[in-house]
Amino acid sequence: MPKRPAFAKWLDDTNDVTATFLAAGRVPGLINLGGGLPDTSVWPVPELAGLASTAVAKHAAETLAYTPVAGLPNLRDLIAKRFSGDSITLTRDNVLITSGGAQALGLLGTTLVEEGAVIAAQAPTYLGALDNWRPRRPRYRPMRLDANDLDPAKLMTGAQFAYAVPNFSNPTGKLVDTETRQSLVDAAHDTGTWLIEDDPYGALYYDAPPLPRMLDLSAEKSRNPYDGPVIYLGTVSKELAPGLRIGWVIAAPEMIKALSTAKQGADMCTSGLCQQITHDAFATGLADDMLPDILSLYRSRRDALCAAMDAHLGELYDWERPTGGMFVWATAKRPELNTDHLMKVGLEHGVCISPSSVFDPEGRDRRSVRLNFTFNAEDKLATGISRLAEATRTALAQS
Amino acid sequence: MPKRPAFAKWLDDTNDVTATFLAAGRVPGLINLGGGLPDTSVWPVPELAGLASTAVAKHAAETLAYTPVAGLPNLRDLIAKRFSGDSITLTRDNVLITSGGAQALGLLGTTLVEEGAVIAAQAPTYLGALDNWRPRRPRYRPMRLDANDLDPAKLMTGAQFAYAVPNFSNPTGKLVDTETRQSLVDAAHDTGTWLIEDDPYGALYYDAPPLPRMLDLSAEKSRNPYDGPVIYLGTVSKELAPGLRIGWVIAAPEMIKALSTAKQGADMCTSGLCQQITHDAFATGLADDMLPDILSLYRSRRDALCAAMDAHLGELYDWERPTGGMFVWATAKRPELNTDHLMKVGLEHGVCISPSSVFDPEGRDRRSVRLNFTFNAEDKLATGISRLAEATRTALAQS
Repeated sequence: MPKRPAFAKWLDDTNDVTATFLAAGRVPGLINLGGGLPDTSVWPVPELAGLASTAVAKHAAETLAYTPVAGLPNLRDLIAKRFSGDSITLTRDNVLITSGGAQALGLLGTTLVEEGAVIAAQAPTYLGALDNWRPRRPRYRPMRLDANDLDPAKLMTGAQFAYAVPNFSNPTGKLVDTETRQSLVDAAHDTGTWLIEDDPYGALYYDAPPLPRMLDLSAEKSRNPYDGPVIYLGTVSKELAPGLRIGWVIAAPEMIKALSTAKQGADMCTSGLCQQITHDAFATGLADDMLPDILSLYRSRRDALCAAMDAHLGELYDWERPTGGMFVWATAKRPELNTDHLMKVGLEHGVCISPSSVFDPEGRDRRSVRLNFTFNAEDKLATGISRLAEATRTALAQS
Repeated sequence: MPKRPAFAKWLDDTNDVTATFLAAGRVPGLINLGGGLPDTSVWPVPELAGLASTAVAKHAAETLAYTPVAGLPNLRDLIAKRFSGDSITLTRDNVLITSGGAQALGLLGTTLVEEGAVIAAQAPTYLGALDNWRPRRPRYRPMRLDANDLDPAKLMTGAQFAYAVPNFSNPTGKLVDTETRQSLVDAAHDTGTWLIEDDPYGALYYDAPPLPRMLDLSAEKSRNPYDGPVIYLGTVSKELAPGLRIGWVIAAPEMIKALSTAKQGADMCTSGLCQQITHDAFATGLADDMLPDILSLYRSRRDALCAAMDAHLGELYDWERPTGGMFVWATAKRPELNTDHLMKVGLEHGVCISPSSVFDPEGRDRRSVRLNFTFNAEDKLATGISRLAEATRTALAQS
């Protein structure tokens, strides 16, 4: 058989860890602390089944036909209104509906990244963003947002965009304080560089009221409707249901227009059915009504995970208790722990974790793990952490 | 305000004609012959509403959670079985579920096309494919599949892949005969080059039984499960509903694996809700039960469009009556007609057509138009063609 054409070179540099997470979610007995999955018990199934049926029956043209590339007008209007406030005015032209939050990252890569372009990225960096931009072969300038000598303007000068998850970063679970948010926004205004505010966990505050969005902070220096440098990414995956694959971008109209051109090629439009269900879940109040129960459940699980970590991992790792989001980031006290190896040992011990290497554009950081607390019940979290302690001791003994 | 970073260069080369089509579908009074939209009356709305409700109520985990990257196992199995036959055996590993057929084209670009790579493409070429591959900046080798001196092996040597729509090509509506299909398949086996069989219109045969798929023709020289060079793309957009945004790729497992890696970055997974509805629409027979009515409706509309063309356009254009699909391709008798200009004049006359330039990678072909006959009722088709005749005379008078 003659040789097949070569695959694109970026495929050699990639990893299948996200596929491992998604698959591990279905292995019986395995406790999956590796993914970023919501709990399945939070869904109001009968209500969502009703919305799905009504969406098709009452809005056949919107749900079954192609929608406009940028999304259903009623959903774009709803998102614009939902994110408008005293400091910011948004219209439909500020909003693009995407097929999940992941698609927005891909469209930004297609739209802004030529081979070798510079991205200033909060470090460590969300795996899915790295996955998405890998085909465009960018160079990364890491931003350590809790460093004392952080100089956003220096990092952002000459970059195509800066990327941050200010609310409970994936992977570290850390909250970026208001002062740092303001400094990033100021640097974006001063340098002209776009600033991506990726915000899947923005509603998941467990202990205190939310800090202001960078989108809102930047509105002060922008015209209305909003034309500033922040590109805000939202999603229903954490608050409603990931299976709908609905996300949105809020940005200056020129950016929405460019992203729409990229989206036209990527998938023509997002499912009208899923868009209409999302619209109705917000418009009827269903999504907002779900939130208190979600927060209460995830708060208890955060507490349960941290209690189990205190009981089993205190000698092995350092970590901070997160005040929101889905993850705890734990760094091994002993530098010889290789968490890539630990991931495999963990699977043999019946627990799946995320190793730090996949959140590093260079793949070099092998000392930390990301632990998810939203997907499993409290007893499973405790068992999972106990298994992780065993697996860590095994991995250390092998190192 | 400091200058913003430049958008990626490919955005300068693109066009917004697809967005124009999708938007034109919603302008009152305008007769849209430009898009490739199905008729909205073919949808069994109550049945689909029932499937949507049942999918959520009975399969909450499948519909509301993330699915595996490659798709729901039950839908992958169903597609594998549906396309298996005497000559070909397919398994789940041969199938990737995509967010519409458009996404498959994008994933193929991400997976196979480095900047400057060669694509051998049936000419004229589907606009959406050109849109999708533009960010990767390929070079095109046009394949005129009805040329007497067609030499597929010569065209495919050194190309990353060949691309064809053998059933009622978009834009020309032409059927590629079995002999030419076989010669493309043989060339793919001989050269090792991948051969994309894009088949959105494969069920829309109005006058005769379907010709064999290139996928099936290539199975003879492949092992089972299928590991040959054909990459087959299907979709529910023409037979069920585009709003579901469900398509599939059937190919060798190594290709499905590479495309899955690209899809993980692109959108993580396709909506589980839309996948489950699609599964149930096939499994319950609903999709197959709809087909005779769709064929009958579209056959009548094809006849109505061609009758109106005979009445109004005989002096202005040459065309062939298509035996399936959604389009008639008409080429101006007078070479001075510029159909880019005609598109604008047409909009002023209340009719939207697709100009040939958008189906040419070089954008140079200005002499033809693509006319859709599936979206409008027969009287509207007649009015639309009468308006097109006027618009053509106006455009010619201005040239």
